[in-house]
Formats: sequence, structure tokens, C-alpha cells
Amino acid sequence: MHLGRHISGQFNAELEAIRTHVLTMGGLVEQQLSFAMQALHKQDIELAKKVVRDDHKVNGMEVTIDEACTRIIAKRQPTARDLRLIMAIIKTITDLERIGDVAAKIAYIAIETPSPNEQKFQVSLEPLCRRAIAMLHQVLDAFARMDTDAAAEVYKLDDDLDAEYKAVLHQLMLYMQENPQDIPNILQVMWSAQAIERVGDRCQNICEYIIYFVKGKDVRHLENDDIDKYI
Amino acid sequence: MHLGRHISGQFNAELEAIRTHVLTMGGLVEQQLSFAMQALHKQDIELAKKVVRDDHKVNGMEVTIDEACTRIIAKRQPTARDLRLIMAIIKTITDLERIGDVAAKIAYIAIETPSPNEQKFQVSLEPLCRRAIAMLHQVLDAFARMDTDAAAEVYKLDDDLDAEYKAVLHQLMLYMQENPQDIPNILQVMWSAQAIERVGDRCQNICEYIIYFVKGKDVRHLENDDIDKYI
Repeated sequence: MHLGRHISGQFNAELEAIRTHVLTMGGLVEQQLSFAMQALHKQDIELAKKVVRDDHKVNGMEVTIDEACTRIIAKRQPTARDLRLIMAIIKTITDLERIGDVAAKIAYIAIETPSPNEQKFQVSLEPLCRRAIAMLHQVLDAFARMDTDAAAEVYKLDDDLDAEYKAVLHQLMLYMQENPQDIPNILQVMWSAQAIERVGDRCQNICEYIIYFVKGKDVRHLENDDIDKYI
Repeated sequence: MHLGRHISGQFNAELEAIRTHVLTMGGLVEQQLSFAMQALHKQDIELAKKVVRDDHKVNGMEVTIDEACTRIIAKRQPTARDLRLIMAIIKTITDLERIGDVAAKIAYIAIETPSPNEQKFQVSLEPLCRRAIAMLHQVLDAFARMDTDAAAEVYKLDDDLDAEYKAVLHQLMLYMQENPQDIPNILQVMWSAQAIERVGDRCQNICEYIIYFVKGKDVRHLENDDIDKYI
């Protein structure tokens, strides 16, 4: 894919290397989230511990990519499209790192609450998890191709995630009222659901950076419908 | 304060203008947070509506400062200390904007739940609020002076905020178990407490950017105690 219009082949190679690193980081975060949800669902403490242990890898990648971006700005003095790409990357990795934190948080919950067993509470987090992981997967795909149409599609998926989250919340609240003795455990399930819901917001942020890079327009803080105007 | 070693007076003036803009944004966010907490505490719906209405001002400032930073990179091609300052600013405004979101969220809760009246639930959010606002105030002060010692002090205050948050959570949980009929309202108070607790994390992030700018060292993802090594 032709990403820039600069003349330096070496510069191009450096930008490509950073982009590849972001996708590797994205892949790791996706795996962490998937493992964390699996650990929570199956009460797999070993898998949860692995997620917690591996969180530092995600953090390390954020720092490394950030440094590479600062270095390339100082050395290559990029402008226009190249500079937008670097800015988009700097912001994207912050959101990816925070999704990594969500994975670690869910893993902690799986470890500390040996049997929150959401099925017992007549609710399943699985559809919520599936939606969040799908959003992350799709936004990374849109990022890889810098595809604004795909980004706009992912952006809108957050409505479904929110609706699912609200349904889960409602169900858990009813269960709490009927079974006050289970409240501490149900709250753990609620925290997990809330953390998963926030993955959707993070993915939406990344959609905005993709559109910013390609179109040169900052589409943060608009209403959903307005995003289509900039694609 | 002598912030850079560059020779261009005009460049210096541009950097100073951005820094001043960040402090203005910080002041607005502090006011928003303070008003939101006041609105929640006193059930002042009008004040809460004002906070929600004014959130777009915070968002607009983030976009404007971001654009100014990108422009200055393209035009002035900063390196070393100047570039670190711009990077620190780009990250700081993201956290300030999210603290603005917290204020808006608390204001929404104040509007949608006309009488969560935390006193009724034998818990007060006031000490938590006071701590969060104090942390924000102090970190903005540290940012204004680019004072790493002050940043390290603020960083450590988060432990107290966390402890206070956990105490509030525990109290609310007990109250829920005894009064299941109040659960929906208590959950609203819990969401508010959680949002306030997160202000502390955001302030810690800003501390890290101050240290990054002054010392040139990325101190994210370290343990609390390690931060002192870099001051």
C-alpha cells in the first residue's frame, strides 16, 4: 500500500516498520482480551495468571513505539500525511494499551473471585465478549488497510455493544435484588461487563484516528451520524 | 521560566501560547469537575445541566491544542526538549479531556437520578471528591512549573484516593445487602465513586508526562516506588 508521498525510501521503510509494530501490538492485545474472557468464562486461573503476567509486554510495546515515533519526528521532520500517520499511531497505541489493561483487569477478577460463575446469575457475558473482540479485530483490520469505510462500520457497532451491556446490567441488577447475599460476586461480574463495554469506546477512538489520518479531519466529539460525512 | 534552548523567539512564543492554552483547559476541567460534584452533592439539576452543556468547550480545546501541536511540529521541526514538551502536551490534553468526560458523566447521574442522596446510604462522596479535585489542582500546578518533585508528590496521593474509594465501595455494598430495594440508586452512587476514583489515575498519567518532559525518561508502567529514582 502506498502510504506516503515522500521521496526517501529509508523513511518509508521506517514508517512501515512502526506500522507493522502497531499491528503486532494489536494482535497481542486481541489475544490478551480473548484469553482473559476465556479465563473468566471457564474459571481458568492459570490462563488468567498468564494474561496478568503478559500485560508488561503490551506496556513495553507502547513505550517502544512511542519512542520510535518521537525519533522519526526528530530525524525525518515529517509533514502533512506522514505526520498525521505518526500522530494517529501515537494515539492508537494509547488506546491499545488501555484495552490491554482491561484484559488484565478481567484476568484479575477471574483470579480473585474463584466462582463468580455468571451463568448462576442468569446472565452470560459471552455475547458481550464476542462483540468486543469482534470490534477490536475489525478495527485492527481497518487500521492495517487504513480503510475509512471499514472504520465507520466498526464505529457504529458500538451501539449494539452498549445495548447488550445495558441488558446485562439490568439482568444483574434484578438478580442482586433477589439475592442480596450474592451481591459482592455479582458486582465482580458487573465490573467485568463494564470493562468489556469500554473496549468498544476504545475501538471507536481508533476509528477516529484512521479517519483523521486518511481524510485529515478530526472527527472526535461528533455524533455517530456525522461521521459518515467525512468518509 | 526558561523552557527551551531554541534560538527562535517566535517559536518560543508559539510554544508558550500552547502551554498557556493547556493550563486554561486544565482550569476549565477543574471547574467542570468541581461543579459536577457540587451538583451531585446538592442535587442541583441546573448546575448539572450547565456541566453537560459546557463539556463541548473542553472537547473543542482538546482539538484546537492538538492541531496547534501538529502545526508546530510541521512548521518548526522541533527536536529534543521542545519535541518532548509537545509530546507531553499531546498526551496531557487527552487525559484532561477524559477528566472532563468524568465531570459530564457525574452531571448526567445527578440529572437522571434525582435523589441518590448518598447520605441516605450512610456514605459521603465528599472526601473522595475533595481528594480528586486536590490531585487535579496540584498536578496542573506541577505542569505549570514543570516541577518533577511536585509531580512525584501528586503521583503518590493516588494511594489515599484508592483507599478512600475502597472504603466507600465497601460501605455501599453493605448498604445494598441490607436494602435491596435501593440497589438501582446505590449503583448510581457507585458509578460516581468509580468515575471519581479514575480522575486519580488520569492525574498520575499527567505526572508521568511532566517527568518525561523534564527528565527525558518514560516512567510509565513502573511501580510507585520506582518513580523517585527518576526525579
